[in-house]
Amino acid sequence: MRDWIALNMTPGIGPRAAAKLLERLGSAGAVFGASRAELESLRLRPEAVESIMARDQHEKAAGEIDNVRALEADVLLLDDGVYPSLLREIFDPPITLYVKGAWEQCLDQPCVAMVGSRRCSTYGLNTATMLARDLAAKGVTIVSGLARGIDAAAHRGAIEAGGKTVAVMGTGLDLVYPRDHKKLADEILAKGGALVSEFPLGTPPAPQNFPYRNRIISGLSLGVVLVEAAENSGSLITARMAMEQNREVFAVPGNISSKNSFGTNYLIKGAGAKLVQQWQDVAAEMPAEIAARLLPPEPSKKKAKEDGLIQQLELVPDDLTTTEHAVFKLLSSDEAIHIDALLERSELSIPELTGALFALEMRELIRQLPGKCFVRKM
Amino acid sequence: MRDWIALNMTPGIGPRAAAKLLERLGSAGAVFGASRAELESLRLRPEAVESIMARDQHEKAAGEIDNVRALEADVLLLDDGVYPSLLREIFDPPITLYVKGAWEQCLDQPCVAMVGSRRCSTYGLNTATMLARDLAAKGVTIVSGLARGIDAAAHRGAIEAGGKTVAVMGTGLDLVYPRDHKKLADEILAKGGALVSEFPLGTPPAPQNFPYRNRIISGLSLGVVLVEAAENSGSLITARMAMEQNREVFAVPGNISSKNSFGTNYLIKGAGAKLVQQWQDVAAEMPAEIAARLLPPEPSKKKAKEDGLIQQLELVPDDLTTTEHAVFKLLSSDEAIHIDALLERSELSIPELTGALFALEMRELIRQLPGKCFVRKM
Repeated sequence: MRDWIALNMTPGIGPRAAAKLLERLGSAGAVFGASRAELESLRLRPEAVESIMARDQHEKAAGEIDNVRALEADVLLLDDGVYPSLLREIFDPPITLYVKGAWEQCLDQPCVAMVGSRRCSTYGLNTATMLARDLAAKGVTIVSGLARGIDAAAHRGAIEAGGKTVAVMGTGLDLVYPRDHKKLADEILAKGGALVSEFPLGTPPAPQNFPYRNRIISGLSLGVVLVEAAENSGSLITARMAMEQNREVFAVPGNISSKNSFGTNYLIKGAGAKLVQQWQDVAAEMPAEIAARLLPPEPSKKKAKEDGLIQQLELVPDDLTTTEHAVFKLLSSDEAIHIDALLERSELSIPELTGALFALEMRELIRQLPGKCFVRKM
Repeated sequence: MRDWIALNMTPGIGPRAAAKLLERLGSAGAVFGASRAELESLRLRPEAVESIMARDQHEKAAGEIDNVRALEADVLLLDDGVYPSLLREIFDPPITLYVKGAWEQCLDQPCVAMVGSRRCSTYGLNTATMLARDLAAKGVTIVSGLARGIDAAAHRGAIEAGGKTVAVMGTGLDLVYPRDHKKLADEILAKGGALVSEFPLGTPPAPQNFPYRNRIISGLSLGVVLVEAAENSGSLITARMAMEQNREVFAVPGNISSKNSFGTNYLIKGAGAKLVQQWQDVAAEMPAEIAARLLPPEPSKKKAKEDGLIQQLELVPDDLTTTEHAVFKLLSSDEAIHIDALLERSELSIPELTGALFALEMRELIRQLPGKCFVRKM
C-alpha cells in the first residue's frame, strides 16, 4: 500500500502514466525497484524519474497511512478485489482511491451520478432534489461532487429519502470544499453515505483537480443525470466523459429561454442524451435486471403489465372513454385491422378514430403495424 | 366545380369516402352520374346515397360558388394542378379547399406548422412568437390554426417579421373563430398571408371540426413545431398525425415542472420529435436544398463552413483558447492521432486535453474516430 500511495503522490505521474507503469512493470513495488534506464525508456517526465529513484515520497506515504487510519478512512488500490469495478473500467482509473464511510454498501447498490451547474436556478435545485430523492428511495445510490448548486441538492435529496449518496471530492478527504459544505459532508457520512477522493490527504481545492474528480463521479456510476448546465459548463464535459466511458447520459430539459438549460437541451438535441421527466426515465435505461427491480409491475395502478393481463383475459380496462372503448373492442391481438375497416366498423370520424387509436397506443394497449394496421398488445 | 363542392357538402361523406368514390368513379361528375346500385356497392352510408341520387346539394353548391366569389376567395379541387402538392400526399386530403388571400405565394415558400396549447404559458407565447418570427424572416411560411395561445402567437410572430403566414380554419372561411381573432385574420390577409378551410362557407365552429382541421395544418407543411402541449393535449394528436403523414415533428422542451411542457418533453423523449432550441434547428431538418438556402454559410461569423476553409488553408481560428490552440496545432486532417500521443505531446493534464478536444469538437473543427483517435475536419 505504501508503494501505491507513494506512486500516487509522485510529482509528474498522473493516473494514465501510473497505469502505463503498472502495466509494464506489474506492481507499484516493481516501479520503485526499476532501474533509471527502465524508467527513462518509459518516457516519464524527468521529475518523476528522479522522485521514483529517490523514493522521496515513501516517508510521506507511511505517514499518510497513519493519517488515513486516524481519519477512519481507507485507501483502495487499483488491484484490490474491492476496488469499484465500474471505475476500474474507465480509461484512466485512479490507482489509489481514498474512501470514508459506508462506501461498500453505497457501491453495492446501482449508482447514478447527478451533476450540474453550481450557479443553478430554483428549478434546477428543485428538480435535482426531487429526482435524487425518488431514485434514492428506490435503492439507487446518488453520486455527486459535493459542489454548490445541483451537486448539493442531489446529495440532500438522497439523504431526505433515507437513501445513500456518495460525494466524490476534488480535495483530500480531510478538507471539505466549499468549506460551508462540511456539515453536508458530515451528514452524508452520518446517514450511511460515503466520501471518496483520489487525492492525498491535505490536497487543497486546486481548480485543476475538479475536472479529474468528474471522471470518478461518472466512472463510479451506471449513468449520469445532468440537471442544469449552461453553454460552456464543466458539466457538459462531464457528460461527454461519461459518454466516452460508455455510461448512459441523461439530461433534464428546461425552458430554451433559460441559460441554465442550454447545455442540457443541447445534449438531448445533439449528443443523444436521454431526456428525463421523472425518475422512471432513468431507471428504465439501467441494465435489464436492475431496471426490472427498480420498476416492478404495480398491480394497483394502470400499468402496461396490468393492461397486458387484462387483454389476455379479453377484458377491457374500465377507464377508457366510450370512443376508446368502442375502438378497443374492434381490435384483436390475433389479427391486424386496417384503419379503413376500423373507420367503417366504428362509424367514427377520422379524427375521432385517430384520437382514440393514439390514446390506446399511449396506454400501450394497442400497437400500430406498418400500412396503417392496428392490433392489441399481448 | 359544382359537383366537387356538392360532393364535399354531401352528408355522410367524409374526405376518405370521397377519395374512395373519386378513385372508383374517376371524377365528382361521375359520382353524381352513378347508379344507386353502384353507390350502394361502395358501402356508403344510406343518407349519402340518397343525397347523391337526389343531387340535393347542387343548388346550394351553385350559391356557394357565388358566395366564394363575393368573398374574393377561391376553391381548389383535389385534381387541380394548383392544389397544394404536400397536402395531396396525405391519407385523407380534403377534396375541396377554400382559400383566401395570397395562398399561392405562401405555399410557394417552404411551410412549417407551429401549434400548441390554447392555454399556454408566457414562456410558450414568447417562444412561439420568437421562433415564428425568426423562421418567417428567413422566408418560411408559418402555418397554424388561428386558435388562442400558441397559434395566435405563431401567426403574429410571422407578421411581425414581415413574413407570410397561413391560418387553417375549423370553420367556413366567412366565420372567424374565436370571434375576437377577426382582427388577426384580417391582418393575416392584409400582410400577404392566407386563410384556408375545407369546410363550406357558414360552417360553425363545431368541436369535431378542429381535429379534422389539424391534419391540414400538418398536411400543408414540411414539419410541425409543437411549442407547448399538456399531457392530454390535442396538439399531441396533431404531432402524431404529422408523423403518420411523414412530416418532421419538432418540439420545444420546457421545464419538467410545467404542465404545459409535459407533452413536448414527452414527444422528444418517447416519440422521436426533434428538440428545438432555435430556428436553425428547424431549418437544418428541411429537405437538403431548402436547408442550404435557409442556412447559408455566414462568412462574417465563426461557422463550420469557414472553419473548414481555415483548416484547408492550414490556418488556426483566432478565437481559440491557448489550450485549444495548442491541441488544434497538434492535430492534422491527414492522420489520426491517439489521445495518449496527444497527452504526451501537449503535456496537458487529461481533463485539460479532454476539455480542449471537446471544445474543438463542439465547434466542428475536429472529429473523434473510434479508439480515441482524433483528426481535423476538412
